[in-house]
Amino acid sequence: MPQVGIVMGSRSDEPVMAACGEVLESFGISYEIRVHSAHRAPEKTRDYAVSARERGIQVLIAAAGGAAHLPGVLASWTSLPVIGVPLATSELGGIDSLYSIVQMPPGMPVATVSVGAWGARNAAYLAAQIIALQDERVRAAYDAYRAKLAEG
Amino acid sequence: MPQVGIVMGSRSDEPVMAACGEVLESFGISYEIRVHSAHRAPEKTRDYAVSARERGIQVLIAAAGGAAHLPGVLASWTSLPVIGVPLATSELGGIDSLYSIVQMPPGMPVATVSVGAWGARNAAYLAAQIIALQDERVRAAYDAYRAKLAEG
Amino acid sequence: MPQVGIVMGSRSDEPVMAACGEVLESFGISYEIRVHSAHRAPEKTRDYAVSARERGIQVLIAAAGGAAHLPGVLASWTSLPVIGVPLATSELGGIDSLYSIVQMPPGMPVATVSVGAWGARNAAYLAAQIIALQDERVRAAYDAYRAKLAEG
Amino acid sequence: MPQVGIVMGSRSDEPVMAACGEVLESFGISYEIRVHSAHRAPEKTRDYAVSARERGIQVLIAAAGGAAHLPGVLASWTSLPVIGVPLATSELGGIDSLYSIVQMPPGMPVATVSVGAWGARNAAYLAAQIIALQDERVRAAYDAYRAKLAEG
Amino acid sequence: MPQVGIVMGSRSDEPVMAACGEVLESFGISYEIRVHSAHRAPEKTRDYAVSARERGIQVLIAAAGGAAHLPGVLASWTSLPVIGVPLATSELGGIDSLYSIVQMPPGMPVATVSVGAWGARNAAYLAAQIIALQDERVRAAYDAYRAKLAEG
Amino acid sequence: MPQVGIVMGSRSDEPVMAACGEVLESFGISYEIRVHSAHRAPEKTRDYAVSARERGIQVLIAAAGGAAHLPGVLASWTSLPVIGVPLATSELGGIDSLYSIVQMPPGMPVATVSVGAWGARNAAYLAAQIIALQDERVRAAYDAYRAKLAEG
Amino acid sequence: MPQVGIVMGSRSDEPVMAACGEVLESFGISYEIRVHSAHRAPEKTRDYAVSARERGIQVLIAAAGGAAHLPGVLASWTSLPVIGVPLATSELGGIDSLYSIVQMPPGMPVATVSVGAWGARNAAYLAAQIIALQDERVRAAYDAYRAKLAEG
Amino acid sequence: MPQVGIVMGSRSDEPVMAACGEVLESFGISYEIRVHSAHRAPEKTRDYAVSARERGIQVLIAAAGGAAHLPGVLASWTSLPVIGVPLATSELGGIDSLYSIVQMPPGMPVATVSVGAWGARNAAYLAAQIIALQDERVRAAYDAYRAKLAEG
Repeated sequence: MPQVGIVMGSRSDEPVMAACGEVLESFGISYEIRVHSAHRAPEKTRDYAVSARERGIQVLIAAAGGAAHLPGVLASWTSLPVIGVPLATSELGGIDSLYSIVQMPPGMPVATVSVGAWGARNAAYLAAQIIALQDERVRAAYDAYRAKLAEG
Repeated sequence: MPQVGIVMGSRSDEPVMAACGEVLESFGISYEIRVHSAHRAPEKTRDYAVSARERGIQVLIAAAGGAAHLPGVLASWTSLPVIGVPLATSELGGIDSLYSIVQMPPGMPVATVSVGAWGARNAAYLAAQIIALQDERVRAAYDAYRAKLAEG
Repeated sequence: MPQVGIVMGSRSDEPVMAACGEVLESFGISYEIRVHSAHRAPEKTRDYAVSARERGIQVLIAAAGGAAHLPGVLASWTSLPVIGVPLATSELGGIDSLYSIVQMPPGMPVATVSVGAWGARNAAYLAAQIIALQDERVRAAYDAYRAKLAEG
Repeated sequence: MPQVGIVMGSRSDEPVMAACGEVLESFGISYEIRVHSAHRAPEKTRDYAVSARERGIQVLIAAAGGAAHLPGVLASWTSLPVIGVPLATSELGGIDSLYSIVQMPPGMPVATVSVGAWGARNAAYLAAQIIALQDERVRAAYDAYRAKLAEG
Repeated sequence: MPQVGIVMGSRSDEPVMAACGEVLESFGISYEIRVHSAHRAPEKTRDYAVSARERGIQVLIAAAGGAAHLPGVLASWTSLPVIGVPLATSELGGIDSLYSIVQMPPGMPVATVSVGAWGARNAAYLAAQIIALQDERVRAAYDAYRAKLAEG
Repeated sequence: MPQVGIVMGSRSDEPVMAACGEVLESFGISYEIRVHSAHRAPEKTRDYAVSARERGIQVLIAAAGGAAHLPGVLASWTSLPVIGVPLATSELGGIDSLYSIVQMPPGMPVATVSVGAWGARNAAYLAAQIIALQDERVRAAYDAYRAKLAEG
Repeated sequence: MPQVGIVMGSRSDEPVMAACGEVLESFGISYEIRVHSAHRAPEKTRDYAVSARERGIQVLIAAAGGAAHLPGVLASWTSLPVIGVPLATSELGGIDSLYSIVQMPPGMPVATVSVGAWGARNAAYLAAQIIALQDERVRAAYDAYRAKLAEG
Repeated sequence: MPQVGIVMGSRSDEPVMAACGEVLESFGISYEIRVHSAHRAPEKTRDYAVSARERGIQVLIAAAGGAAHLPGVLASWTSLPVIGVPLATSELGGIDSLYSIVQMPPGMPVATVSVGAWGARNAAYLAAQIIALQDERVRAAYDAYRAKLAEG
């Protein structure tokens, strides 16, 4: 029963998001990866989000580029916290993705992290911080990571 | 049986979108207005979009600001053409809305018009152009409008 | 007698716009391709737009970059719906093209789609949605495409 | 013992952040408000962050404008999740604040929400979603809120 | 027989462009003012541009906002130098107008000046510099102006 | 005695500006090329600008990138028309150069053309349009060029 | 004999720059204020910069908006450190001023501070930090200020 | 005892910052290089800044990208002048870094220089200008450099 669901809109997003799973693993957090397009397959996206909590998911991580609706659409179907990763786009660099993810209306937040590869990893670190609030093992692993960082 | 459905995410969008209905009326195009938040009420938004065509709607016009997902979410639930109006936001001026509406992924277009008040009216003109392709009365009305414009 | 006219400002735009024609073909929509610079050859551009409807064209698709006036200029000479594709530019990434196409004044809309390669394809999908309103064959083909998308 | 610490860089940020506290209260979440400038009073900022967890704080919310370092500086001193609210600035509209908060380097995420007043409220909703993972009472309150939203 | 033609897309542009005429007058340069929308009245715009040189016009000044095609459209119909004034827009501040005017393709330049009120005046100063190349009286007047400026 | 002076801030700008000279040559316009940094060698830049008119120069073309002051500095030392070419910069794409050149204060215009390679050529076309006002031979050459363009 | 020279391009910049002088005074730093337009009065601007060091000036502060060349032009005429304050512009918010001041080419830095009112004050604080390196009295005053800040 | 401390957030910034040290050396200015992440190792960053002055450092140069807090964090811990170099980021080009560094709140300036490689060198030139105020040898070296520049 995975603790985190990583969702992306397209198989082409997998290379940049691979680091996300690796960071989760380093903290002993279980996860699953799904490819669901918010626009092309809205029913499947909805089913995934609606059933996430009862399947034990605690945090959703969604990566998307352009009119990057995936994180917001997931957020509209679940009350779990959703972390959004704005992916770079070739023409606009990812500002489009950033705006489309972060500027959510009141009541429906998406926890947005850095654009691109930095964000893929930071989504996992943020998920770890959230899960650590109730999971002693993850907290210890995360604190050990931070201590190592501080030593440079 | 309305030909056009105007949808907005919030009642506060009504003043700027009023002009949209007025333009449609000037061409004798029937329409209905709905307030459906893509995020806060995703189920109602979906039901509206899914049933639009069978109720006789030919074109959807959706206005939204910020992470303006409404037009894209409607597009994901229907195969009718969706026209998106990016509304201004107080902090970012509407660039956020524009990117969130126009940068749709392949297969799922939103016909985006100008930001704000210009777009509210242009959405109606565009709907008229589309309906005019099969409705002689609307075509005549639209052509008369264009002839009047050309005279200055 | 083609249903769609694809116009671009320069032969160098053909590679990115090739996908547009392919998508139209996949729905059985006939089209023609023209290279007309709005600025360098304004008379030819005008003649093309003015005669488009009587030649059976239902939708114009225009692609341009930089001060991308071509879609708006076509729109000024015809009352057919015009779809604009903002092409990327090497220095500004395509924001210049996007603004030049989407920010049309009231009365003269251009249905703007995504920047670059995504937009080249989305212009065709949007044209198919518009033509499907009156062409049962295209509607069936487009709905089949959407059903396939939804299956992922 | 408050569950959430709301920190802002200046007393002048209090009006926009008042809504944040009101939303937390509506879910029965306890909180405290502090004014600590990351730059002018770095020692106090550090002491606050370092002691936050042992004082029972589960989530920090930090609001700042311009070179909005406060959320990131707090994140550097604690392993609690930090939610950042980019406040509007009079000259640049808040894009400066948004970039300064969201573009955190790998290992050190800030959960960024919308710019300005929307973000002040969304920070509280996001905190509620996070706390709800382990607090049944908050979860019930949040789910009730979402149900009410969905009814429009 | 006016030396300069000032063209604007809408009567609402007249207040900001009034300063343009005043500057021209201060140098003894004759001018006429026309309101021609490039999009709404393309035929009249074309007729004006095509006949400008034979009517003695030496420089065209065109002001427009949004997808500000007017300067470029005039440039496409005449070989006279065209000066473009990007007018401010309420949502995007005038960046849209600037890009739409300045980013002209090779072969078809528009001499672009500052956005808004500064540009309305600078268009006239630039026209004076151009006309001064062949008109001793204007050159003397312009040089006197510059000498006065230099004295502060 | 050259009619046009092409000035650039650095030898590294020569490749992109080579096309400028070629276009001038194609119209039989004589020119000279100078490398003068507005900042590093302000005295030489001043001397060049101050003496330009008496040496027969009619139009100055200045290319620069970043805080691209060269065109404006030349304009401050001469009353000849100055055409500015905003060169691309590797980090900001040329928006910095564009703003630094176009946003001149009232009284001191720079005739700004497109960013980068398009602008290098358009500066020459604009210079030709200006010189053609008083030089029959250049006018004929330019009109011939335009006629050829119009034929596509 | 003033230690700091505050220069602005226009009398209209005085209100925002008044705070700059007040901050300098609070540290006992003497200063003078001059209005010199880099473009309109280049000779006076040059004379001021060239003579600044021998008159005892240690730091120049220059405020400008739009194509804000004043700080860079001063820097080109003196080897004293120049601090640049990007002033807001009504259409572009001050991004134009920021780029025009900060993006100086190698060899010719301008020490750029925040846009607008924040920058007017920060220019004085930065000047105080620089002068404090060699002036014990200013250092003591500045450190006292920082200690007071830290107390909140 | 070094006069300048060059600090960067990551070893990966060393290639672009190498030029900074070379320029300092060319003026006979001693320096040290440190890698301290403001976020990952806040305690070490603080210790370095707090002790800088007593170790004889006169100017700090800090380079960072993204949410580039390093210069501002150093400034919060010391009253020495801090020069900030905004490094390019792959997705946003360095605008994020620029805003995060330059938009410091009143009382806490960072002397910001150009983005990327230009800024790496300009930070050293600016440090030389500041140190030259009290170090005759550096002043002579810097003036010699400027004289050489002026000769082109």
